[in-house]
Amino acid sequence: MKEFDTIAAIATALGEGSISVIRVSGSDAVRVVDKIYQGKKPLAAVDSHTMNYGYIVDPQTDERVDEVFCAVFHAPRTYTGEQVVEIQGHGGIVAVQRVMRLVLNHGARLAEPGEFTKRAFLNGRIDLSQAEAVIDVIRSKTDAAMKVAFRQVEGGLSKKIRELRQKMVEMLAHIEVTIDYPEHDVEDVTIQHVISEGDRIVDEIDRLLGGATTGKILREGLKTVIIGKPNVGKSSLLNALSRTNRAIVTDIEGTTRDILEEHINLRGIPLNIIDTAGIRETEDIVEKLGVERSREALEAADLVLFMIDASRPLHEIDRELAEAVKIRPTIVILNKTDLPRRADLDELRALAGDFKIVETSVATGEGMEQLERAVEDLFLSGGIEGQESTYLSNARHVALLEKAKREMGEALESARVGLTLDLVAVDVRNCWMSLGEVVGEAVADDLLDQIFSQFCLGK
Amino acid sequence: MKEFDTIAAIATALGEGSISVIRVSGSDAVRVVDKIYQGKKPLAAVDSHTMNYGYIVDPQTDERVDEVFCAVFHAPRTYTGEQVVEIQGHGGIVAVQRVMRLVLNHGARLAEPGEFTKRAFLNGRIDLSQAEAVIDVIRSKTDAAMKVAFRQVEGGLSKKIRELRQKMVEMLAHIEVTIDYPEHDVEDVTIQHVISEGDRIVDEIDRLLGGATTGKILREGLKTVIIGKPNVGKSSLLNALSRTNRAIVTDIEGTTRDILEEHINLRGIPLNIIDTAGIRETEDIVEKLGVERSREALEAADLVLFMIDASRPLHEIDRELAEAVKIRPTIVILNKTDLPRRADLDELRALAGDFKIVETSVATGEGMEQLERAVEDLFLSGGIEGQESTYLSNARHVALLEKAKREMGEALESARVGLTLDLVAVDVRNCWMSLGEVVGEAVADDLLDQIFSQFCLGK
Repeated sequence: MKEFDTIAAIATALGEGSISVIRVSGSDAVRVVDKIYQGKKPLAAVDSHTMNYGYIVDPQTDERVDEVFCAVFHAPRTYTGEQVVEIQGHGGIVAVQRVMRLVLNHGARLAEPGEFTKRAFLNGRIDLSQAEAVIDVIRSKTDAAMKVAFRQVEGGLSKKIRELRQKMVEMLAHIEVTIDYPEHDVEDVTIQHVISEGDRIVDEIDRLLGGATTGKILREGLKTVIIGKPNVGKSSLLNALSRTNRAIVTDIEGTTRDILEEHINLRGIPLNIIDTAGIRETEDIVEKLGVERSREALEAADLVLFMIDASRPLHEIDRELAEAVKIRPTIVILNKTDLPRRADLDELRALAGDFKIVETSVATGEGMEQLERAVEDLFLSGGIEGQESTYLSNARHVALLEKAKREMGEALESARVGLTLDLVAVDVRNCWMSLGEVVGEAVADDLLDQIFSQFCLGK
Repeated sequence: MKEFDTIAAIATALGEGSISVIRVSGSDAVRVVDKIYQGKKPLAAVDSHTMNYGYIVDPQTDERVDEVFCAVFHAPRTYTGEQVVEIQGHGGIVAVQRVMRLVLNHGARLAEPGEFTKRAFLNGRIDLSQAEAVIDVIRSKTDAAMKVAFRQVEGGLSKKIRELRQKMVEMLAHIEVTIDYPEHDVEDVTIQHVISEGDRIVDEIDRLLGGATTGKILREGLKTVIIGKPNVGKSSLLNALSRTNRAIVTDIEGTTRDILEEHINLRGIPLNIIDTAGIRETEDIVEKLGVERSREALEAADLVLFMIDASRPLHEIDRELAEAVKIRPTIVILNKTDLPRRADLDELRALAGDFKIVETSVATGEGMEQLERAVEDLFLSGGIEGQESTYLSNARHVALLEKAKREMGEALESARVGLTLDLVAVDVRNCWMSLGEVVGEAVADDLLDQIFSQFCLGK
């Protein structure tokens, strides 16, 4: 185990809660907390994994600052692999901050974001892909996203990567034996082995990459724009989607404060509906922004919900918007089907092109299920529930797997055109190293810093 | 101990954190969690106060939902006095909600706000005034407020109330003996005793009530309005106060989202600066609202910071505002003292009347300390740090103590005018009962419901 200084952070979310937890990690953790803890026994004398009742006391004033339970976790079987103390005190912001100040004044340093998890990785408790998924678990916005992230924390992706790397090690061993003992004259056999194994590895990498889009959607959500001419029912649609599918994160600190996004959980798919100019405030996005600015909003979108009023003849704005949405994945929503139809269906079909048309009456609720299914079909081809495969959700992993695929492809190419085995071995070794970076082997320090700095404080 | 059903709630604040805790309380707590927990041993077999590593598993699908530590606390030495299980899992909203759903689907009921603390009270773990202070600890906005609330959780107020009640019991015993054994002929002595003891009790109640204003301010903060003519420096003042004194609650969920208040911690005093029309947005409150509407804002204020521009002659608006602020506690701030003075100081003094005038240059920072001291003097007469007394901070307690004071006053009146001792005893007993209500003796169920419903979920 490596030696580090002792760090501390508030591990629970800040806000009104009944409990808060401060986590202290490092070889001095017990010593630091014992300076400000008064219980039946000092923490140095308590058993690992026990909850000990007592007080946090300011040693300078003897004032009892909070009533707490302290748990000690002895190394190495802890989250970070180091000695860990958890102080469970009153919830609320001031209470936990007061205790935190004392912890920091008595020998611990404020942890950087992600530093606990980084130590867990550096101490070999988890690999890098597991560590990266920890933050995805915390930030996941739907059950499906949480499941995928948790599977990765549990080592689902790591296992697959390890299996692939093991195969490459075997390939390399084959090659080495063949090179070292040319008298055995098995070169042809080895090349055949390399090609068949290499093909299988490329297939497996392809399968992993195939889940990347789904993984990314689950992790980051779909940027969605609702567009349509004034009074077509945009805010009603948003309300209807929110009412039944509102993601539970919507009302939580930080998630919607600055970004003008409405989070909706649509059959497990997180939709981040971009509220370009306050859909709820005004029906007149198009008027307000003009078609030109709507186009800009569209360019950032993963999904466009383009609404058309079925009860009125198609309007010039509809035609302009239809032109504008062509650049993005779009579902055309023919709304107000409860009213007498006046929109020209043939022209509409021509406008929609390849996009799916869903008929709805947001007012009566009709067609909403079809709309949800259309979104699901467009992105997940068959839903996400029940599928057991591991999804790549991290752009870094996707890039490394694509690199690994290219490298293995080059190895295969070399083998097929008859280059010498030592050249083939170079590509296989590169591929093996690229996959190693996914789980954190031979990753540069500054990359680690970058990865863990995206974490929240206290993890 | 009373028997209740088993309740559960998320005990940590919702949001992005690395840890969340679900608390389950009731005689079935271990049984419920064991249905969804898989560890080395079932929780039924683990020691009290130990942290047990394992998984929350959905028994229907065998899916591992989260990786957790479960702690079991056996009754009666627990927060609620009942069997308690705490499930510490991944932070984040979705993760904790998934575990929570399983807990609720396997025999626990979602706790009502404050229900854990209510049970702690009903099971005799804490008295009512301690229970009420729990939520004050969680919601406190400054260190001083937290200290006062925590002292009450620790039983500071309860102790004083119990001492007073004990004195009354002794008075009643005296009276009873005198009535039961009239042959001893000690009535005069008893009356003297009642009067001297009663006077001392009234003094003590007065002392407690004397801290009520401070307690209320610390608990609820001072509603503060900054007012003055356009460009006098209102937003600069707010910025200056925020920069150095911004209360740490400002950026937290729920605290400022809907209420347009800026929370500032000024020497331990929480100021809730009411942003009537976005002080930061526009300098033109007066223009925008008109003096009439400013007056309305003033009426709700505990403190008015009335700014006047020292570098310009007094303006008609200044005179109108000076008239308007007369109704509230005000500090007059003569700003821009770094510029050549043009305001007529004599007229200003006449306008300010009894209000304190502080000269500042918000731009250079001059006078800010004097301003802070002026606020402190106005409300706390001598500061709050270092004072050891117990502050009443709860309106219910204040009302009960005022009632008790009246009742003891009536007892004293009766004793002084020579009414019979049994009539005196009635008033003393009433007083004893009123104080009993502070600590929760003989409190009606619906009042309890009302008190605990103000809590946050999970406490």
